Amino acid sequence: MSDPSTLAQLPTPALLIDEPVFAANMGTMSAALPRSALRPHVKAFKSTDIARRLVQAGHEKFCAATIRELEGMARAGFGTDLLLANEVLDCSRLGRLVDGGANITVAIDSPETLRAAVDGALTDVLIDVEVGLPRCGCSVDDAGRLADEARSVGLNVRGVMGYEGHLMMVADPDERRGRVERSMTKLLTAHEAVGGDIVSAGGTGTYAVNTWATEIQAGSYLLMDTQYATLEVPFEIAMTVLATVISVSRKGWFVVDAGLKAFGMDHGNPTYPEGELLFCSDEHATLKPAEGDPMPAVGDRVRLLPAHVDPTVARHEQFWVHDGEAVLDRWPIDLRHW
Amino acid sequence: MSDPSTLAQLPTPALLIDEPVFAANMGTMSAALPRSALRPHVKAFKSTDIARRLVQAGHEKFCAATIRELEGMARAGFGTDLLLANEVLDCSRLGRLVDGGANITVAIDSPETLRAAVDGALTDVLIDVEVGLPRCGCSVDDAGRLADEARSVGLNVRGVMGYEGHLMMVADPDERRGRVERSMTKLLTAHEAVGGDIVSAGGTGTYAVNTWATEIQAGSYLLMDTQYATLEVPFEIAMTVLATVISVSRKGWFVVDAGLKAFGMDHGNPTYPEGELLFCSDEHATLKPAEGDPMPAVGDRVRLLPAHVDPTVARHEQFWVHDGEAVLDRWPIDLRHW
Repeated sequence: MSDPSTLAQLPTPALLIDEPVFAANMGTMSAALPRSALRPHVKAFKSTDIARRLVQAGHEKFCAATIRELEGMARAGFGTDLLLANEVLDCSRLGRLVDGGANITVAIDSPETLRAAVDGALTDVLIDVEVGLPRCGCSVDDAGRLADEARSVGLNVRGVMGYEGHLMMVADPDERRGRVERSMTKLLTAHEAVGGDIVSAGGTGTYAVNTWATEIQAGSYLLMDTQYATLEVPFEIAMTVLATVISVSRKGWFVVDAGLKAFGMDHGNPTYPEGELLFCSDEHATLKPAEGDPMPAVGDRVRLLPAHVDPTVARHEQFWVHDGEAVLDRWPIDLRHW
Repeated sequence: MSDPSTLAQLPTPALLIDEPVFAANMGTMSAALPRSALRPHVKAFKSTDIARRLVQAGHEKFCAATIRELEGMARAGFGTDLLLANEVLDCSRLGRLVDGGANITVAIDSPETLRAAVDGALTDVLIDVEVGLPRCGCSVDDAGRLADEARSVGLNVRGVMGYEGHLMMVADPDERRGRVERSMTKLLTAHEAVGGDIVSAGGTGTYAVNTWATEIQAGSYLLMDTQYATLEVPFEIAMTVLATVISVSRKGWFVVDAGLKAFGMDHGNPTYPEGELLFCSDEHATLKPAEGDPMPAVGDRVRLLPAHVDPTVARHEQFWVHDGEAVLDRWPIDLRHW
């Protein structure tokens, strides 16, 4: 069967990318952070088709959150400079990518993860530093010692990374800038002790104010979601879920065939812009029209806006890329799972 | 590579099924609702390996929430009596299953979904009746007319279904029983007007009190989750997510490599029974030990309990079936997507 050529022909639920919006988002970021100033984060889109467009826009180095993401990127030929921006204990799969010709760097924050990098036959590491988010990363005070230990066993320490994830959603831009500065001051202190060329940090929420990092790790800006859209960032929502009206009640609600299995729900329900979303079930959402608007008919299509881009992407097999009603392309979401 | 033989060898995050607990859950339900009294709901486990065990336990008819689930069930040879317990507009894929020899019944609740069944060359339908949950289903008053209309165009109307999903989590058993009775009274009224042999309803939360349905649609009881475990039901949690400690902070928290992409998050965070889960990121959870307990070491393994079984299952490629530390089997989750 040939791929559908219009939105009306798509089986639902279908994950859509509005191509003009996507292209504008990509262009805006690539203008702000050209080439190696941006290290796009694969975890937000999990698709080598999107990675290809980023390469065409001048970005050759990527970061990722899972080994599977890096395996797929290397296999697709995007192995110029791949960073696993997470700690990992079994680095043997990463070592096989190096054997295959990819350049792999892994984050380490402890003697154990250092040892894992050596055992996996990796050569390049970044020292991951905790800069305020209670998650991974060694303390600033330990960073230099860990770098020394890494170099003493033959590893190439390329620099530091530190993710200020707790500051992505600070609403006030001045407060966000001030807190990012304090967070990055920690990272720069660690960098003084560690050395190397790289200070890797940031994300879609802080890319414009984080002027201390040598490279920004951002990915959500390409597709966006309703939470990021509350920030003053120059990116628009490019990703929606297309659903079909399967039932209409005389009591004032109607039901579509996209439920919570089609969305990342950790930031709450998706948004129905033309009315109200009452609740989600596994494979349904119950909606109602805006006050005064007519009920839709069974068979009509609606589009819902996800609240969190990354886990929504991970629920689908493909993006359908469209411009208005025309379906332009199908991009497999080929970097899922672990 | 051969499959891992112990939990310690599994790559993480890994979705586990505790085989003895699973077997006990299955046995308890099959004793309460033997053979055709239960129509297991595929949406809760999405695996033909689990369906096979249910067939071996005497259950030959199934229901499902997506066309893909039915396609996989038919392909695996479980096409004796398959119910799509949802409305669907494009029934052509279901019609192809009938051509392949499967017996398919679809829920209808409107003239449009009736027409879709005819257009898809289906012959068997159930009238879906709204019994209190604001979702799909026609009104009780419309059920007879819709059945007449279906029979007038040659469809076989097998009976009614009505899902009292809003009552699954009513905590007080007496209140639950009373409200289920009122809900099922509606369904039986519709059934009088519709005819046919089937009154299909219920779920894991109401199976023991719903004595009006001729068959119960339940699936969550097999694997369970922390929300269903708050009910007084004789099923234990059989499904957990195995994760590896990848970072330990001197500030009192530690981090594992299973985050919100490994869980259905619509019922909230997973539970860490040995301590506290502070928050989930895409690929991490930040935990802390119980008061007075020692911190784990990097490389240790922990198990987390999902809050909602169905969407958690849909995030993973396979179940690893274990008994204690021994890995017994790998069951692909082969019925995902749409």
